Amino acid sequence: MGPHPAVAAIRLAVRRVLHDVLTDHTRPPGESSPLVLVACSGGADSMALASALAFEAPKLGIRAGGITVDHGLQPGSDLRADDVVSRLVELGMTPVESLAVTVGRDGGPEAAARDARYAALDAAAERHGASAVLLGHTRDDQAETVLLGLARGSGIRSLSGMAAVSGAGGRYRRPFLHLDRQTARKACMVQSLPVWDDPHNADPAYTRSRLRHEGLPALEKALGKGVVEALARTAQLSRDDADALDAWARQAEASVRDTAGLLECAKLYALPPAVRRRILRRAAIEAGAPAGSLFARHIEEVDRLITGWRGQGAINLPGKVVAQRQGGRLVIRQG
Amino acid sequence: MGPHPAVAAIRLAVRRVLHDVLTDHTRPPGESSPLVLVACSGGADSMALASALAFEAPKLGIRAGGITVDHGLQPGSDLRADDVVSRLVELGMTPVESLAVTVGRDGGPEAAARDARYAALDAAAERHGASAVLLGHTRDDQAETVLLGLARGSGIRSLSGMAAVSGAGGRYRRPFLHLDRQTARKACMVQSLPVWDDPHNADPAYTRSRLRHEGLPALEKALGKGVVEALARTAQLSRDDADALDAWARQAEASVRDTAGLLECAKLYALPPAVRRRILRRAAIEAGAPAGSLFARHIEEVDRLITGWRGQGAINLPGKVVAQRQGGRLVIRQG
Repeated sequence: MGPHPAVAAIRLAVRRVLHDVLTDHTRPPGESSPLVLVACSGGADSMALASALAFEAPKLGIRAGGITVDHGLQPGSDLRADDVVSRLVELGMTPVESLAVTVGRDGGPEAAARDARYAALDAAAERHGASAVLLGHTRDDQAETVLLGLARGSGIRSLSGMAAVSGAGGRYRRPFLHLDRQTARKACMVQSLPVWDDPHNADPAYTRSRLRHEGLPALEKALGKGVVEALARTAQLSRDDADALDAWARQAEASVRDTAGLLECAKLYALPPAVRRRILRRAAIEAGAPAGSLFARHIEEVDRLITGWRGQGAINLPGKVVAQRQGGRLVIRQG
Repeated sequence: MGPHPAVAAIRLAVRRVLHDVLTDHTRPPGESSPLVLVACSGGADSMALASALAFEAPKLGIRAGGITVDHGLQPGSDLRADDVVSRLVELGMTPVESLAVTVGRDGGPEAAARDARYAALDAAAERHGASAVLLGHTRDDQAETVLLGLARGSGIRSLSGMAAVSGAGGRYRRPFLHLDRQTARKACMVQSLPVWDDPHNADPAYTRSRLRHEGLPALEKALGKGVVEALARTAQLSRDDADALDAWARQAEASVRDTAGLLECAKLYALPPAVRRRILRRAAIEAGAPAGSLFARHIEEVDRLITGWRGQGAINLPGKVVAQRQGGRLVIRQG
């Protein structure tokens, strides 16, 4: 009798990613076998991921290790981290580490915790010479991320969710991006793996938690059960579309600059709006505008210097960047 | 004292569109003044639109007329249509017509009603030689349309909502696409215009109604009040992006066909996935696959003939269309 379907599903997902890792990272002869780490909070998603990695890695001559990050945000988080370490060791993983981080305040509590976590994971991956770090994000997380991006209203890049492969050299891999949360939880249950439910995930103070427990269920009730899958598919399609348009904008940018490197308004005017606005956004960021503070309405206003020119004055952008039209050229620079 | 802010807002929105209509439709000398029709259900949005059109049109030498469509779906709908006609006449409009239509069943009740309605409006516009037909869709309707498209998961074209200008020769105009529903309702109230609330709009049997009364409010609760605006902005950005990518695909298509007009796999492979899949989709539709039945997963499967070729057989698409790879060429035709 084979494994439970949920266990088979998580193992298959991990096996596929490990094959990719082996293909991408041909190691020099004489080096020890490659190491793949799992980032594990002790929750169902990442515990399922750890169990599948522990099972599949040895069969492919890969060493499996685990990292848990102690954000220090709740009393007793250090004890919980120790607990996760024990479980990962029980799964036969080595090395296994608990990393304590200090969470700052930049960008809100969720963003600050994420920044601290990835910095710690990056450092651990470097230190251990890991070929990859696996992350337990599921299709449900992806759907939530798409809705969070939708709420920003800043275009298709923010709809493209999380990438299956990301980070320096494609270090981070998300094997469960096409798997639902329920499958991960089921796989833990049938393997008798204890899981820890982060109280943050149910805390209505967090946007993502409200979305998970109220927003998405209401949307599913209105639109039908396929919403999560549709959102995840939207992420993939949007990502490909955004990549193609970014490539077009990069290529077109050279052709709209004059010999002095200034943007020529007439040439910009001839481009499709989607391409032109991407060039304007790139130019603003290059001039020093912080990407995170540069909204669609800023770019629209700069765009009107090209498409709705009636002698308007300089436009102020975040980061003290100023855009103005001068003699048929668009000048964007720090003022 | 000027008009109430809500009335000022609806009039400004209509005035802008009427200016566009005047610019777009230069009429031959000797012809009578242009006619603009409003499609009016008697609901708050379209009654507000009718009132603004009746006020603004004469100032620009435009004749204002109105059409109400009786879908015959509820008892007494003919009496209600007569009532709407009286109100439009009271606003000083001429011509004013009630058009009874027969709603079929194709594509579900909402789609069938829409098809019947637009067919009647098209015919009326032709008959009266109207320069434009104004539709009362608001920013809230736009947000709902984006979410409905999101639920299909079929990419950014389905996220692009309703266009400000659409139909044959840009006949249909949506002046209120950036205005919220509350403003239209307020404008009716302060002008003492009676409005009719379509019971369909509150009927949970309709997807849009569930979205309006449950899905969107829950999403706003989770993500904040700006969701409707963010969705409407997403529509505009997605539309521009989809237009640009469609243009790219149209242009690239010629360059990937051989002298016999067949698609060359090697050249398709070199294109960005977003562009390649659009070419594949166009080719499938050209070969006879009905656009509405052709899903992202179909195109992905055809795409694997290019990107993941391992000798797989012919792929069946809707409309008895078959895609197969033969000697480095992709052949898509009705089987």
